[in-house]
Amino acid sequence: MCEIRPITGGGVTTAKGFLAGAASAGIKSNVGALDVGILYSERECSVAGVFTTNRVRSAPVPVSQRRVKAGGLRGVVVNSGCANALTGKEGTADAEEMAALAARKLGLRDEEMAVASTGITGVRLPMVKVRAGIQAATLGHDGLAFARAIMTTDTVPKEAAVAVGTPSDQYHIGGCAKGSGMIEPNMATMLAYVTTDVGIERDLLQTIVRDLANETFNMLSVDGDTSCSDTLLVFANGASGARVEAGSDSEAGFQQALRTVFTELVRQLARDGEGAKHLIEVRVSGAASAQDARLVAKTVASSSLVKTAVAGCDPNWGRILVAAGRSGAEVDEGRTTLSLQGELLFERGKVLPFDEAAVRSRLEAPEVMIGVDLGIGEASAKAWGCDLTTDYVHINADYTT
Amino acid sequence: MCEIRPITGGGVTTAKGFLAGAASAGIKSNVGALDVGILYSERECSVAGVFTTNRVRSAPVPVSQRRVKAGGLRGVVVNSGCANALTGKEGTADAEEMAALAARKLGLRDEEMAVASTGITGVRLPMVKVRAGIQAATLGHDGLAFARAIMTTDTVPKEAAVAVGTPSDQYHIGGCAKGSGMIEPNMATMLAYVTTDVGIERDLLQTIVRDLANETFNMLSVDGDTSCSDTLLVFANGASGARVEAGSDSEAGFQQALRTVFTELVRQLARDGEGAKHLIEVRVSGAASAQDARLVAKTVASSSLVKTAVAGCDPNWGRILVAAGRSGAEVDEGRTTLSLQGELLFERGKVLPFDEAAVRSRLEAPEVMIGVDLGIGEASAKAWGCDLTTDYVHINADYTT
Repeated sequence: MCEIRPITGGGVTTAKGFLAGAASAGIKSNVGALDVGILYSERECSVAGVFTTNRVRSAPVPVSQRRVKAGGLRGVVVNSGCANALTGKEGTADAEEMAALAARKLGLRDEEMAVASTGITGVRLPMVKVRAGIQAATLGHDGLAFARAIMTTDTVPKEAAVAVGTPSDQYHIGGCAKGSGMIEPNMATMLAYVTTDVGIERDLLQTIVRDLANETFNMLSVDGDTSCSDTLLVFANGASGARVEAGSDSEAGFQQALRTVFTELVRQLARDGEGAKHLIEVRVSGAASAQDARLVAKTVASSSLVKTAVAGCDPNWGRILVAAGRSGAEVDEGRTTLSLQGELLFERGKVLPFDEAAVRSRLEAPEVMIGVDLGIGEASAKAWGCDLTTDYVHINADYTT
Repeated sequence: MCEIRPITGGGVTTAKGFLAGAASAGIKSNVGALDVGILYSERECSVAGVFTTNRVRSAPVPVSQRRVKAGGLRGVVVNSGCANALTGKEGTADAEEMAALAARKLGLRDEEMAVASTGITGVRLPMVKVRAGIQAATLGHDGLAFARAIMTTDTVPKEAAVAVGTPSDQYHIGGCAKGSGMIEPNMATMLAYVTTDVGIERDLLQTIVRDLANETFNMLSVDGDTSCSDTLLVFANGASGARVEAGSDSEAGFQQALRTVFTELVRQLARDGEGAKHLIEVRVSGAASAQDARLVAKTVASSSLVKTAVAGCDPNWGRILVAAGRSGAEVDEGRTTLSLQGELLFERGKVLPFDEAAVRSRLEAPEVMIGVDLGIGEASAKAWGCDLTTDYVHINADYTT
């Protein structure tokens, strides 16, 4: 149907007609770090957005949400170092000014820019620095600078891109992300921006993005969608000439390609979770419903006991079953089968003998795969997480407001 | 109405007509540690029970649950070191044999004994040791030995007792508990046993115990009621001659006294959470509903970010509001007021200036009080938790299956 090829080093400026840039404005405490980023499309776009469900929302969130809904967005301006959250009406005015300054720099109308902020909460944006940063940013094909400018406690920038070949056309999808909602770090709201040069109608894009976000970003863990600033924006500008039509092969191909980019970003987010030494992937099958599969996968991936066991390379499979049992899903231990790194440990209620030293050593790999088959129905789901280490506690206990 | 007086050093044998004892059977790895405990009433009882809601239940849970429901229980036998969970039909047979052996030792019918196990999962009970332990236990007024015999990763036994004086009578309530469901440690299922020499009808006792458990034990945190073995049993044998009658002052007095004992045990559990240096108490008021108040209190008390901030004595109040915001309850930051150790930090949407060094120093106290007034309605709730330290990770990552 279509060929999906990863593009190494690709990001938000891989798709045609998108420019990005960044500046170091001194908002983050580390000297010289990029902390203001701008991304925009040279032509009109369809834009889809998914935002935090937290009742406490940072000031930029409702501003961007309204503009996604109204249509006509072309770009986004982001700062890191200060979340502009719990800042009242003044915070809203700051967010609107930030978007307006970026829009004017690019010759756009204010309403064509979305805005996001990430960093500490409860503190006003240092607008003198923000204004200078927006002024200083040079726009070009520098997706990596944008990816760096949105980072907070992230240790590495996260980017992914694919080229999609159809029988008649070729187009691109590229994105970047920061933070890790999974461990809901204060400084690390999840932000993700994805661009594509395929053409697609706005409502169709929104539907596809919402469904795929539920399958991917929202499966980072139970807490994955609940920081006060989480934002995912997808821009589609049609610059490649290729188009996605509802109900056609082109829609299925686009979904598959977008899922590939989202999943790759989610895996990078999990792998770079604060203090993480292991990426954890939980694959649940045989669930009574999709909802049950999701509940079990998310509960296991976010269980402190499972996460500490993985940190200790401990094949403590009982913790996995107990987490599944408390997920709220239909679980019957007599029908459940469990594997760790591909090794069967528990099969339909029976404990299987295994070589503990061997499994322990396989748990030292950077990726840990947990398989749970509930043996009840046909539904499946995946969730991603990371281990819980003493470094997580150090980062979050010793970090100063 | 009635006077409630704490009894220092009191426990499950403070109330008249209850005997307890313990033995060291070698089930736990630490040599000489008590690991089999028996508690029973010399006369007939009303017994109420609250059990885990986990779909994966250790073998003793359904056995005890059935016997509470059938009525006629007189005692309980408990071992620590092995949870008898994920052990299939053989595990059920072991649990039934354990109860039967204790019953026969005491001259009771099998169905008069409840049973519980706590410790590692996925391993059969070492029945040779269990049988010898039950045989060896000497029964007397040794509530402390029983409290020690049910411990796993607990560093101290947890006991509480009160004397209740009414205009006409006096009776006692005493209890012990182990574990801390809050941090859902693998080795530390929450078990709690409470005895009283007041007389009370069984259905009334069950209603009162269930409601108070929701207010106290189930507010240890979101995960507090979800290990695979959690059990709370309350035995009332009427030996004091005092009686609780439905709808009377005696009922209100009993509720208040039982709440005192439950709350004290819960605070001891939170304080002894794995790796904990601080007890955290969250008091929520002004919520739209009792459900909302509970959601906010539990979400704040169990937030990893709040728990690590407390570990670092960091007055990072933004984390508290963000946790409240994601709780699912109705929260409006413009109406919310927040205090930490009694110091107002945020009032109806406004950040208040505060002396950070002073608050930081007050956070070094062993108990941290977080106050959240939602400013919406009249409902309130409390929740208890503890901080998240690197020791928690060490205990759970380095513990071997």
